[in-house]
Amino acid sequence: MKLVTPTPITRTYEYEGRLPDPASMMKLSGLEYLQGVLRGDFPAAPIASTLGFWPGDFSHGRAVFIGAPERYAYNPLGTVHGGWAATILDSAMGCAVHTTLPAGKGYTTVDLSVTLVRAITERAKKLICEAKIIHAGGSVATAEGRITDEAGTLYATGTTTCLILTPR
Amino acid sequence: MKLVTPTPITRTYEYEGRLPDPASMMKLSGLEYLQGVLRGDFPAAPIASTLGFWPGDFSHGRAVFIGAPERYAYNPLGTVHGGWAATILDSAMGCAVHTTLPAGKGYTTVDLSVTLVRAITERAKKLICEAKIIHAGGSVATAEGRITDEAGTLYATGTTTCLILTPR
Amino acid sequence: MKLVTPTPITRTYEYEGRLPDPASMMKLSGLEYLQGVLRGDFPAAPIASTLGFWPGDFSHGRAVFIGAPERYAYNPLGTVHGGWAATILDSAMGCAVHTTLPAGKGYTTVDLSVTLVRAITERAKKLICEAKIIHAGGSVATAEGRITDEAGTLYATGTTTCLILTPR
Amino acid sequence: MKLVTPTPITRTYEYEGRLPDPASMMKLSGLEYLQGVLRGDFPAAPIASTLGFWPGDFSHGRAVFIGAPERYAYNPLGTVHGGWAATILDSAMGCAVHTTLPAGKGYTTVDLSVTLVRAITERAKKLICEAKIIHAGGSVATAEGRITDEAGTLYATGTTTCLILTPR
Repeated sequence: MKLVTPTPITRTYEYEGRLPDPASMMKLSGLEYLQGVLRGDFPAAPIASTLGFWPGDFSHGRAVFIGAPERYAYNPLGTVHGGWAATILDSAMGCAVHTTLPAGKGYTTVDLSVTLVRAITERAKKLICEAKIIHAGGSVATAEGRITDEAGTLYATGTTTCLILTPR
Repeated sequence: MKLVTPTPITRTYEYEGRLPDPASMMKLSGLEYLQGVLRGDFPAAPIASTLGFWPGDFSHGRAVFIGAPERYAYNPLGTVHGGWAATILDSAMGCAVHTTLPAGKGYTTVDLSVTLVRAITERAKKLICEAKIIHAGGSVATAEGRITDEAGTLYATGTTTCLILTPR
Repeated sequence: MKLVTPTPITRTYEYEGRLPDPASMMKLSGLEYLQGVLRGDFPAAPIASTLGFWPGDFSHGRAVFIGAPERYAYNPLGTVHGGWAATILDSAMGCAVHTTLPAGKGYTTVDLSVTLVRAITERAKKLICEAKIIHAGGSVATAEGRITDEAGTLYATGTTTCLILTPR
Repeated sequence: MKLVTPTPITRTYEYEGRLPDPASMMKLSGLEYLQGVLRGDFPAAPIASTLGFWPGDFSHGRAVFIGAPERYAYNPLGTVHGGWAATILDSAMGCAVHTTLPAGKGYTTVDLSVTLVRAITERAKKLICEAKIIHAGGSVATAEGRITDEAGTLYATGTTTCLILTPR
C-alpha cells in the first residue's frame, strides 16, 4: 500500500552505481580516500544525488558539503524536510571524523543530533554544510556541523558521535 | 561542481506535486488532517517518495511509517545512510505530535536525535517506524520512535522535541 | 574567587567514603555487583547523597532510582536545576546498561540527552526515575529513562549511549 | 529506605539561601541580572555550591563557569559523575542564552545533550566551562558549551535548546 498521489511530479536523476570496496578503502587514510571520492576514483554516497547535495571540500578534521534542496525533499508542511538537514549534516560530520582516521580504521555513526533553527525552502539556492571534528579518540570521535547559506544565515546545527572501528 | 559518477544508475520516480494549503490544514485537527493525507485528500511529503517510505497508520499520539530503502539511499560505506533513518523517524515522530493537536495548531521540529544501533541494507525489505507521543504540552511536545523489521529486530531509535505553533 | 552568598544556608550530610575496587567489580556480573551496592557491600555513588537520590531497584535491563530534591539542588530561577534531572537519569540509565553486562565487562557513558517537560520543585517529595535498556550491543548499549512522581506525572525523559569496555 | 554507607564522609558547606524575585528579574536584561548575580545582588544557584562550581564571567552570548569537582561528586565507578558535567554545562549554556535576553523575557531549558569525551577526576583542580549562543530566536534559543582544563584538554561538550518565555 503506497500513498495516493493524484498529481505527481516525475523526476529522473542519476546516482552513484558503484559500491565501495572495503579492502581498498582500508589501505588509505580517511583523508586520502575522501580526496579520491572527490576525484571520482571511489564511489560517493548515492543518497547525495537523491537528496541534492554533494561533497565540496575535505581537509584534516573538516568536511564541507554543498546542497541545493528542491521540492522532492519537502515535508508535508511545505518546506524542506528536517531529514534533509539531518542527512547532509550526518554526511559532513561523518566525513569530518573520517578525515582524521589513519589507514586501517573505519567508523560508524552511533548518535546524530540535529537542531533546526530556521525553515529551509527551495529558495535557498545554495546551502553550505561545514563540519569539524571536536574530539578524535581511539574508540569514539565526535564532530559538529552547521548549515548556512552564502550570506551566513544559520539554518541548522548538529553533533555526532561515531564509533571508531578496526575491521579485520 | 557536482560529483563525478562514472557508472551512474538512472532512477525515475514520482513524488507528490501538490503543496499543502495552510488554511484548510488549520481547520482540521491534526489527526483528521493526517487521515486525509492517507486518503490522498491532502498532499503527503514529497521526500517520502524520494527516500522510499510512506505513512501506514495514524491514531491519537501514534504514527506508523513503512519503509523499503534501496541503493539510492545508501551512504558511501555501502549501507543505508543514517539520514534515511533520521528522515523516517522525524516523519513518524512529527506526525505522532501532529495527531495530538486540535484544529488551529501547528508544529515544527526543533530537536531531532537519532541513535543507530544496527546497519540497514537493501535486504531489509520492509521496515516499520513507529512513533509515540511522550509529552503533549501547550508550547512544546516530545515524541519517541523506533525502526524495526517485521521480526522485531531494532535498527534505530529517535526522540524529537517540537514547538507548538498558533498560526494567525 | 567564589560567589558572594550574603544569606547562606549551612548543610551537613554524609556521602559514601569508599572508592570502588575494579578487580572485585570485574569478577561479578553487572546485576550481581549492583545488588551488592544495594546491600552496602560495594560503594554507592557519592553524588547520590550530595544531590538527594538513591538506588531503589535493579533487575536485568532495568534500574530504578528514587529522588527527593531539596533547595540545595535549585537553579538560580527558583526550581530544581536541570542538572539534577540529568544526574539521576544518567545514574539510572547507566545502571540499566550495567545490569545487562556479564562479568569482565565495564561501561562508560558517551552521550546523555535529557528533555525537561515540567519544572521540579521541592514540593515533589518523592520522584521515581526508571530506566530501561533499549539495545545491549557488544560495543555500544543504549537506554532510556523517565522521571515521574507517584501520581505518574512526567517531569523529564532521557536517553543514553554507553560504550562497552573490556578492562584488561 | 536510603543506602547503607558503612564508611561515610561528612561534608558541611553553605549554599545560597535567597530565592530569586521574578519581578525584579524581569525588570533587567539577562546580562544586567547575571552581572548582579556576580556582585551578590541576586541569588546564585544553590546547586553550584552543592556541586563545586561557580559563575566566572558573563558577556553578551557567552558565559563561563569554573568548577573544582571533589569526591562528593563521584559516580560509583570512581570518577566524577557525568551528571556533574551535565549540570555545569546546563548552567553555562542556559546563562549564555540568558545574556541575550532583553528585560521582560525569561527562558527554560527544554533539551540538554552532553557528550563525555574523557573521565574527570578530583585531580582536575580547575575546570573551565565556556558556553556560547548559537541561535537567539524569538521563541527558541540554542547554545553550546565545552569543559576543558587550563591546559585546554577537552573533557565534555554539550548543546542546549531553550524556550524563550514572556512571563505576564
